[in-house]
Amino acid sequence: MEEHIKLYHGDGGKHTNALINELFYKYFNNEILLSGMDSAIFNTSIGRFAFTTDSFVVKPRFFPGGDIGKLAVCGTVNDLAVSGAKPLYLSTGFIIEEGFSINELQMIVESMGKTCQEIGVKVITGDTKVVEKGNVDGLYINTSGIGIVDKNYKSKPLQPGDNIIITGSIAEHGTVIALKRYDIKVKGDFKSDCGSVYNITSRLAPFYSNIKLMKDPTRGGLATALNEISSIMGHRIRILENNIPIRNEVRAVCSLLGIDPLYLASEGRAILVVDAGMTQEILLCIQNLDNGKDASIIGIIEELKDNIVYLETKIGGRRLLHTLDTPMLPRIC
Amino acid sequence: MEEHIKLYHGDGGKHTNALINELFYKYFNNEILLSGMDSAIFNTSIGRFAFTTDSFVVKPRFFPGGDIGKLAVCGTVNDLAVSGAKPLYLSTGFIIEEGFSINELQMIVESMGKTCQEIGVKVITGDTKVVEKGNVDGLYINTSGIGIVDKNYKSKPLQPGDNIIITGSIAEHGTVIALKRYDIKVKGDFKSDCGSVYNITSRLAPFYSNIKLMKDPTRGGLATALNEISSIMGHRIRILENNIPIRNEVRAVCSLLGIDPLYLASEGRAILVVDAGMTQEILLCIQNLDNGKDASIIGIIEELKDNIVYLETKIGGRRLLHTLDTPMLPRIC
Repeated sequence: MEEHIKLYHGDGGKHTNALINELFYKYFNNEILLSGMDSAIFNTSIGRFAFTTDSFVVKPRFFPGGDIGKLAVCGTVNDLAVSGAKPLYLSTGFIIEEGFSINELQMIVESMGKTCQEIGVKVITGDTKVVEKGNVDGLYINTSGIGIVDKNYKSKPLQPGDNIIITGSIAEHGTVIALKRYDIKVKGDFKSDCGSVYNITSRLAPFYSNIKLMKDPTRGGLATALNEISSIMGHRIRILENNIPIRNEVRAVCSLLGIDPLYLASEGRAILVVDAGMTQEILLCIQNLDNGKDASIIGIIEELKDNIVYLETKIGGRRLLHTLDTPMLPRIC
Repeated sequence: MEEHIKLYHGDGGKHTNALINELFYKYFNNEILLSGMDSAIFNTSIGRFAFTTDSFVVKPRFFPGGDIGKLAVCGTVNDLAVSGAKPLYLSTGFIIEEGFSINELQMIVESMGKTCQEIGVKVITGDTKVVEKGNVDGLYINTSGIGIVDKNYKSKPLQPGDNIIITGSIAEHGTVIALKRYDIKVKGDFKSDCGSVYNITSRLAPFYSNIKLMKDPTRGGLATALNEISSIMGHRIRILENNIPIRNEVRAVCSLLGIDPLYLASEGRAILVVDAGMTQEILLCIQNLDNGKDASIIGIIEELKDNIVYLETKIGGRRLLHTLDTPMLPRIC
């Protein structure tokens, strides 16, 4: 490992994985942690609980479609949701810079409260720290969450032929943050997809025995999430470029900025790996929901177990979708 | 409220309470949160769970008796322990500054792992964010924790005559941090009390029906914790200055620095309010433990319900122990 932390250690790619494997897994070694999923699952005599944590350091704190508060609630709720859990309780940890506007803090907390109410989750414990001016960039929020896992949901070994569904168009959050960061004014309706996917995952409960795995493509985007799936579950993954829902405006901006949308975060989407035989039923169920109308079958699990994710491009070529190993710009974590 | 966040909004005193009451309680309004205890308690069909969160921003990160990692584990474990819970699982959220030493990070994570092992708690989920240089002061850690509450433990209404016990000598953590902050070299064995109190609270299980309340006197120290108890549970509290265990070296340094040790954090102590009739048995049980040998009966619950905490001084006078309303130095949160 290097001697100093670099920005790319937080990008969700290769270097983040190295840090997790060589440092955190070494000293926090236990079976639940090592499962490496979006939430930790622990058993009790009444069933399985999901537990997850995430810190939010996004700049700008307000963006079309959301703000750091909404993001902090949805991010943790979604980690629980894609673990097959009903989100129950959240904690919030605020680290605030001296001099921060109380009016802005109020807008953020109000947004969190509203989002919680819409989803039906409660903040039941919290902590606030204030640090000297210059010791934090405005405000960072940690949310941890607890949910109860549906008794019929369990991630399962993948089978060749399983289909991969994405619940909506990708890279919208990352694109909005990029536009704001670079202060680029473009025409078009740009809005982060920041939102809860629990309405989708809960509606899918009747299909839980046919869903192998769920994951949300946040930091590092769709490509990173697929690589994680491939590396944890084995199996090569084929992705059909033609089938990936990306809005035209998003595609245009990414092309303008020279960014690959496959590596840009979504904050209100889920990836599902599902039984081939039930794919259409599951897809229809998702498409019936407002935030699922653009759901699409984007790929398939192949037989080879070489942890490779590749893209079948529009013109019929093949491109490896590697794990991020160079600094990702814009930084939108 | 003011227009901007001040350092004292994080001191755990009057201004922190105002922020919590006027902002967080307003938008996160629910019964569990409003109970205002060290952990949130939620019911399930197999019993009650405790859930708590804390962010750690201490400087220096290494100090005699501990480091930010040990503190981050013990702080959250102790919040669970004083809720009558057995700590089970922790989450960790790291926010790290670009350029941070990986060697130092490793020392911190190793210390966390070792502390977890000693206590018997597991880190089962985590998150790592890296932010640009200058956007965080080195490294901040959030830990959230889940525990299962002993079926015999419940905080209960206080009665006049109930005794108040402190499990050990106070203000040692705060004193060590003050010495480091001001770079003061003094002779004497100064060491933070940073440690778990779960070995004490678990040993007290046979007495849980006689324990009304437990709380750890961290941010804002003993005086702040007593004020919280008084304001949540009602009742005037009388504290006997003579009985408060403070090591001579700590007293001397506080006097030198002009700091009141009653407002300095302990990070390995608990306050207990107990039935008068069982006080001696409980005290003996604590004193039998290494980290409880200096336990002492420091006060009594009085009949009046005016939320006042006062000190009966050594020379027989009375002094109000108010809630902190001026900036606390050194900042040791």
